[in-house]
Amino acid sequence: MNPFRTILRKREGEELSREEIVAFLRGYAEERIGDGPMAAFLMAAFFRGLSAAELAAMVDVMLHSGVVIDLGAVKGTKVDKHSTGGVGDKVSLVLAPLVASLGVPVPMMSGRGLGHTGGTVDKLESIPGFRTDLTLTEYRAQVERVGCALIAQTDEVAPLDRRLYALRDATATVESIPLIASSIMSKKLAEGIDALVLDVKLGNGAFIPEPDRAAELARTMIAIGEEYGKRVIALHTAMDRPLGSAIGNALEVVESIEALKGGGPADLRAVTLALAAEMLVLGGVAASREEAVTAGERALDDGRALEKFRDIIAAQDGDARIIDDASRLPRASVQKTVVSPHAGFIASFDVRAIGLAAITVGAGRGRLDATIDPGAGFRMHVTAGTAVQQGDAIATVYAADRALAEEAGRELLAAIRIAPAMTEQPLPLIGPRIPPA
Amino acid sequence: MNPFRTILRKREGEELSREEIVAFLRGYAEERIGDGPMAAFLMAAFFRGLSAAELAAMVDVMLHSGVVIDLGAVKGTKVDKHSTGGVGDKVSLVLAPLVASLGVPVPMMSGRGLGHTGGTVDKLESIPGFRTDLTLTEYRAQVERVGCALIAQTDEVAPLDRRLYALRDATATVESIPLIASSIMSKKLAEGIDALVLDVKLGNGAFIPEPDRAAELARTMIAIGEEYGKRVIALHTAMDRPLGSAIGNALEVVESIEALKGGGPADLRAVTLALAAEMLVLGGVAASREEAVTAGERALDDGRALEKFRDIIAAQDGDARIIDDASRLPRASVQKTVVSPHAGFIASFDVRAIGLAAITVGAGRGRLDATIDPGAGFRMHVTAGTAVQQGDAIATVYAADRALAEEAGRELLAAIRIAPAMTEQPLPLIGPRIPPA
Repeated sequence: MNPFRTILRKREGEELSREEIVAFLRGYAEERIGDGPMAAFLMAAFFRGLSAAELAAMVDVMLHSGVVIDLGAVKGTKVDKHSTGGVGDKVSLVLAPLVASLGVPVPMMSGRGLGHTGGTVDKLESIPGFRTDLTLTEYRAQVERVGCALIAQTDEVAPLDRRLYALRDATATVESIPLIASSIMSKKLAEGIDALVLDVKLGNGAFIPEPDRAAELARTMIAIGEEYGKRVIALHTAMDRPLGSAIGNALEVVESIEALKGGGPADLRAVTLALAAEMLVLGGVAASREEAVTAGERALDDGRALEKFRDIIAAQDGDARIIDDASRLPRASVQKTVVSPHAGFIASFDVRAIGLAAITVGAGRGRLDATIDPGAGFRMHVTAGTAVQQGDAIATVYAADRALAEEAGRELLAAIRIAPAMTEQPLPLIGPRIPPA
Repeated sequence: MNPFRTILRKREGEELSREEIVAFLRGYAEERIGDGPMAAFLMAAFFRGLSAAELAAMVDVMLHSGVVIDLGAVKGTKVDKHSTGGVGDKVSLVLAPLVASLGVPVPMMSGRGLGHTGGTVDKLESIPGFRTDLTLTEYRAQVERVGCALIAQTDEVAPLDRRLYALRDATATVESIPLIASSIMSKKLAEGIDALVLDVKLGNGAFIPEPDRAAELARTMIAIGEEYGKRVIALHTAMDRPLGSAIGNALEVVESIEALKGGGPADLRAVTLALAAEMLVLGGVAASREEAVTAGERALDDGRALEKFRDIIAAQDGDARIIDDASRLPRASVQKTVVSPHAGFIASFDVRAIGLAAITVGAGRGRLDATIDPGAGFRMHVTAGTAVQQGDAIATVYAADRALAEEAGRELLAAIRIAPAMTEQPLPLIGPRIPPA
């Protein structure tokens, strides 16, 4: 195996053999190949792309660089959901208990927030005592017993992906669709799933805002799943505005519990039900998406989903009393209302900038080793199209101190366009499905 | 300075500022930036190119990463020649003494052979005692006293280029015209030259065989030279066949001495005189190239060039008696004649393959840390167009043992096409000049 030749061939746009990809990635995993050659390969792959066969070989090495969990002992079709990330996206906290409450096991490993997007693990960890670091034995046992476990990606799963991601992050090779797809899928395939639903965001807050490229990412992930005999479908949803009203970890837990009680923001409920319907059909407990939506609505409204969330929290050593007493969650000491400087309509959001303002207030992190303030964040009082007068409340900022609240409030306000008239149409909340329904 | 942003902007095809380039390269030089980000940058530069201003900034950092020699104390216009490398290219050994004998100081730092191309330093080191590792003080003093010094690139000159080259070699980013140009020019500008003549080879043995790309390389190097106020011109010469008859270090020294005695192969003499004419005009000792060629012919024929070479050898502790007694040079113990398997014409050469056969016989090296056999090599008895009968001698192989001689002989023969008729025209020995004359 000649690593030089592998880079050269990729640079020249030739398709690498399975053996070449495997030898190159294993060489890196075993530290016989250094960061330099790997970074050159990744940049060449950025420019030249990777074929389905090349990707399959790459995913295979990443997947088998760590533990591949076998959930064969768990009855039923195991289905997970993955979101490409957004601002205010607390869907997993509602969706996972909902789907599990209807008999489909949900083995879910999530990430932490990074950059403008939040992370499910951070949100869950704002619940006092909640452990996202279950052992794989505990994880397996809980999926079997409770029907759902919500944990962090461990070091045992796809460790090569972790190293590659850190290198990509340092070498401006993150935004490559095949590399993104291989990274996501190598982690998801390690979870022990049978099927997967992808929530691929569109709009200026999406990781990949361009619809064509977002669809290509979806299709690439679906193709990788097919190589492994897993059914994967994707749904585009809107991220040209925050999802729901709450942005920030404990604030989003509160809003998720509202949704699990049958309330909460309409957009959060709609996105959750659309994704749940796909999971329930894939899981074989509903014959059609229409039937699944009805079942989902019922489980949200009659408390079954909420009870499942209570079981999950308790199983993971969290304080389940937060469900009935939100004051047990961390709360920022300072609250500040952001008001509209003039009359007009809430015309559009710079969602990425809102995510960055959330880092300023302490709710997110710019670097993986930064700490977050679980009680910090924003509660939005407006959405796209809301008419406001001068002085009307637009959002409440929750922060550890007044200076942070003011700085984040200014950034938040600057990210919201208030115009005399609505000129742009917001994206449809639920966009195209891949493959088409 | 954000290295990530620098890579990202280059990846996106944006032009980097001088400050960005300088900060990124200095960061690498000072080991604050690792091989990964640098390799990603180099691969992005491979795909996106580098502007003249970006290159100038890059060369500046590489040049000033080491000693920049000041030859201000040496009278006259200091002129060097750089060749892009070839097989049998011993021009420097004839040209440097010739030009120095006519009053133009020639400060020349050369490289070692690598891959299919030979290196001036290896050829010189086949002369017993010859030191190519002069100190920079010795180098300066010799250029002043003798008019010419022929030394190896030292660690003190452009050390950053050395590190970058090693990384490019490991990451398939060598064949980038701006990166090649910046590497060559950072070393040449450190020598203390006022002007430079480039011998840019064309043909299948050239480092860059494609005429368009070779011309682009020449223009890029000329542009960098201009940024530094140096006059640079380029001459294309043929490398679709070996230059002269001898290939291999001591063998090439013998042939160079023949040329310095007014004899030797016609092609070697013609290329040397064409390059000498450019150097003599740039050096201000000839009013025209025609006048310069006449002066050059005279200095070769009347022994002045040879005496200058004798002075250089003696000044660098070499055994100058080799000039009159070639038996003092290393000589391989085994000689084997390669004969034509059938009648026909010598239709064409695979010059790269001949260079690789020279590695097999011990005259070249595939890796920088390999050792060479100074006495090994080939002497060609044919050139393009020679008519041969079955059994006619095509070349003599000089090797340390019979097995090596036979293996290299087979490779050499396989690299020579003997056909019933001449179908391809060899390249003109002296090709276009840049800028046109």
